[in-house]
Amino acid sequence: MGKTLAEKILSMHVGKDVIPGEIIIANVDLAFVQDGTGPLTVDQFENMNFKNVSTKSLVFIDHASPSPRKELSNTQKKLRNFCKKTDAEIYDIGEGISHQIVAEEYAKPGDLIVGADSHSCTAGAFAAFATGMGSTDISLAYGLGKVWLKVPETYKIVLKNKLNKGVYAKDIILYLIGMIGADGATYKALEFSGDGIKTLSMESRLTISNMAVEAGAKVGLFPADEITKEYMKNQGREDEFKELFPDEDASYEKVIEIDLSEIEPQVSFPHTVDNTRNINDAKSVKIDQIYIGTCTNGRMEDLRIVASILKGKKKAEDIRLIIAPASKKIYLQALQEGLISTFIETGATILPPGCGPCVGVHAGVPADGEKVLSTQNRNFHGRAGNPNSEIYLCSPATAAASALTGYITDPREVI
Amino acid sequence: MGKTLAEKILSMHVGKDVIPGEIIIANVDLAFVQDGTGPLTVDQFENMNFKNVSTKSLVFIDHASPSPRKELSNTQKKLRNFCKKTDAEIYDIGEGISHQIVAEEYAKPGDLIVGADSHSCTAGAFAAFATGMGSTDISLAYGLGKVWLKVPETYKIVLKNKLNKGVYAKDIILYLIGMIGADGATYKALEFSGDGIKTLSMESRLTISNMAVEAGAKVGLFPADEITKEYMKNQGREDEFKELFPDEDASYEKVIEIDLSEIEPQVSFPHTVDNTRNINDAKSVKIDQIYIGTCTNGRMEDLRIVASILKGKKKAEDIRLIIAPASKKIYLQALQEGLISTFIETGATILPPGCGPCVGVHAGVPADGEKVLSTQNRNFHGRAGNPNSEIYLCSPATAAASALTGYITDPREVI
Repeated sequence: MGKTLAEKILSMHVGKDVIPGEIIIANVDLAFVQDGTGPLTVDQFENMNFKNVSTKSLVFIDHASPSPRKELSNTQKKLRNFCKKTDAEIYDIGEGISHQIVAEEYAKPGDLIVGADSHSCTAGAFAAFATGMGSTDISLAYGLGKVWLKVPETYKIVLKNKLNKGVYAKDIILYLIGMIGADGATYKALEFSGDGIKTLSMESRLTISNMAVEAGAKVGLFPADEITKEYMKNQGREDEFKELFPDEDASYEKVIEIDLSEIEPQVSFPHTVDNTRNINDAKSVKIDQIYIGTCTNGRMEDLRIVASILKGKKKAEDIRLIIAPASKKIYLQALQEGLISTFIETGATILPPGCGPCVGVHAGVPADGEKVLSTQNRNFHGRAGNPNSEIYLCSPATAAASALTGYITDPREVI
Repeated sequence: MGKTLAEKILSMHVGKDVIPGEIIIANVDLAFVQDGTGPLTVDQFENMNFKNVSTKSLVFIDHASPSPRKELSNTQKKLRNFCKKTDAEIYDIGEGISHQIVAEEYAKPGDLIVGADSHSCTAGAFAAFATGMGSTDISLAYGLGKVWLKVPETYKIVLKNKLNKGVYAKDIILYLIGMIGADGATYKALEFSGDGIKTLSMESRLTISNMAVEAGAKVGLFPADEITKEYMKNQGREDEFKELFPDEDASYEKVIEIDLSEIEPQVSFPHTVDNTRNINDAKSVKIDQIYIGTCTNGRMEDLRIVASILKGKKKAEDIRLIIAPASKKIYLQALQEGLISTFIETGATILPPGCGPCVGVHAGVPADGEKVLSTQNRNFHGRAGNPNSEIYLCSPATAAASALTGYITDPREVI
């Protein structure tokens, strides 16, 4: 019987054919934690008397970075010490977000990647089975080089045609989540296919895979095709590329078709990601703070779109505009292209590479009653660090257009 | 009888000759607060039923910027609302540190400037009587355009000769404070003079005036001379310049002579600013975090020195290097000159313009047992946000040289 991408990749990691529903113990190619989840991983690793890591193991200081409180500074110190004692490798402050660095340096087709962060599914864009797990799971992955998991059933998401101008990958995934709901794909593998995916760059695919978990999915996979190959070639990692497609006769639990040409810019209203509306139903909302960045939308493609909208203009007086590149590499590229100057001249505040205000632990917590418009992936109640504030989700283009007006604004009006 | 600079300026603001020790009520040219001190100023302003400000009044969100906690976000919102209701002007996140913006846009010779921040004395470099006051004093300055103060006695600090290579303005002021002690000039005006001041740029003078308060001084004044004029001309503010010198026959409570050519790079050891040592007695200290920036040393002159030392090199692996330009204008200039790229390639984390980790409320709080080397002005116990850490103070050159080794390093070894 033919296999879906998820089944194919997991079979390779078990050494036999696997089927949906089966519990497997699989070899891990890459395991990682961040500064929020890592301290518990280290504790468990030590409790289990592991002395060294058994697979490629990374630690990222990206969430509260640089640390805003001594308690967090102490847990970050613990992570640094762990990396000195073992072969785990640290990416300290200023390096960027775990998921972006995994995409830049590590993820390759066919990998099994586990991270103690729910958006570890980002690397699914490389046809890697990449998924988030708990801190303790990762301590086992570190120590044994293995994890257990259940092979998921797969939903085939067929993307047809192409997006209209002013509509982006972020709108696709918000649209899909709005359609199927935040629990619409719980523990399923999403597998993106159809002619539409050929119109999506790797950076766009990363945005989509990143948010697979917001529909409850275990992983969000794209095939490894010419676009993947070209991207990895530009990264100097062509030798790590291999083609990876689902079998023609793979069996899917569900098939969902989406006509990309019918999607409008989307906005997720508070306080759930699936509370999506077309931009026309969002346009009266007055915004206090706009955040552009994160593992969802802090890449060059995103920053270039934002710069093209902001260039030579000033942000609305009443809003705070915060922009953070997702990695050091992106920061340097954006510097070289003059984007950072453009942002600052517009009135933006540039944060160092990292999660920024997305997770509400530092650098941009809203005040009571304030509304935040963000390119991040979650708008849960209190996510921004204040339960008396609201978060709206959108694409970088919508965020940039809104930065000019102070209200949620259709990017098609300004591009 | 001749007047010192302080006596001259204050006399102009009272409309009669004043003498040291006299309590006066003086007209204020500029009053300002920051996000730490401002909320209480606003409360008192409202308690006293003031409806609008009576002098040029500014509000800076520079300390916890962007806000790391909802409680601070709410007090910042209060400040924004105050500026909407009155003619007070806000400088929000990303704009930079109060003292730097006052130096860029407002301070002029002969001004009386009061700020609810102890380092408001920075503008003394413009021959402005600039001093820090409490939040309530500033609410009165806002409401009435006046403050009361006691006319200080003046210490004349005669700087002779010039600095050797690798020694900078920061070393002068650390040397002076080490010599006279943290209470060596309590409530005195420091007045800098001598041939040596002609060798000091305005940016260097700002560094020195900034730290006058660390010897307890009320103000640290430089005469307004050709160097001041040229600087203000470059700022497009030549029309605001006027010459201002002390009278030849002014009377000083004390005269202190310093031979600049005899000063070595200085380091203040924990936990007091006056605990200074020559660099030779500091060189074994292993550092965990280096911070370059602040109202003391976050200007172009500083960043250029740092870049000249760091260019093409990598920071020591074990340290965290944090750099923050003091203002948006400086950030943009540093971008234009390629300094920001140099810093990032070295491995630095760039924070947005603002106070950064200096004040210990966000973005770079050290862990227990860690040592911080910083270009800031204070190393008080717990200042960095963790009482179990230590802070060492130095010049930007010493900080940059140390970033390459991980130990406190004499900059003369690398320039």
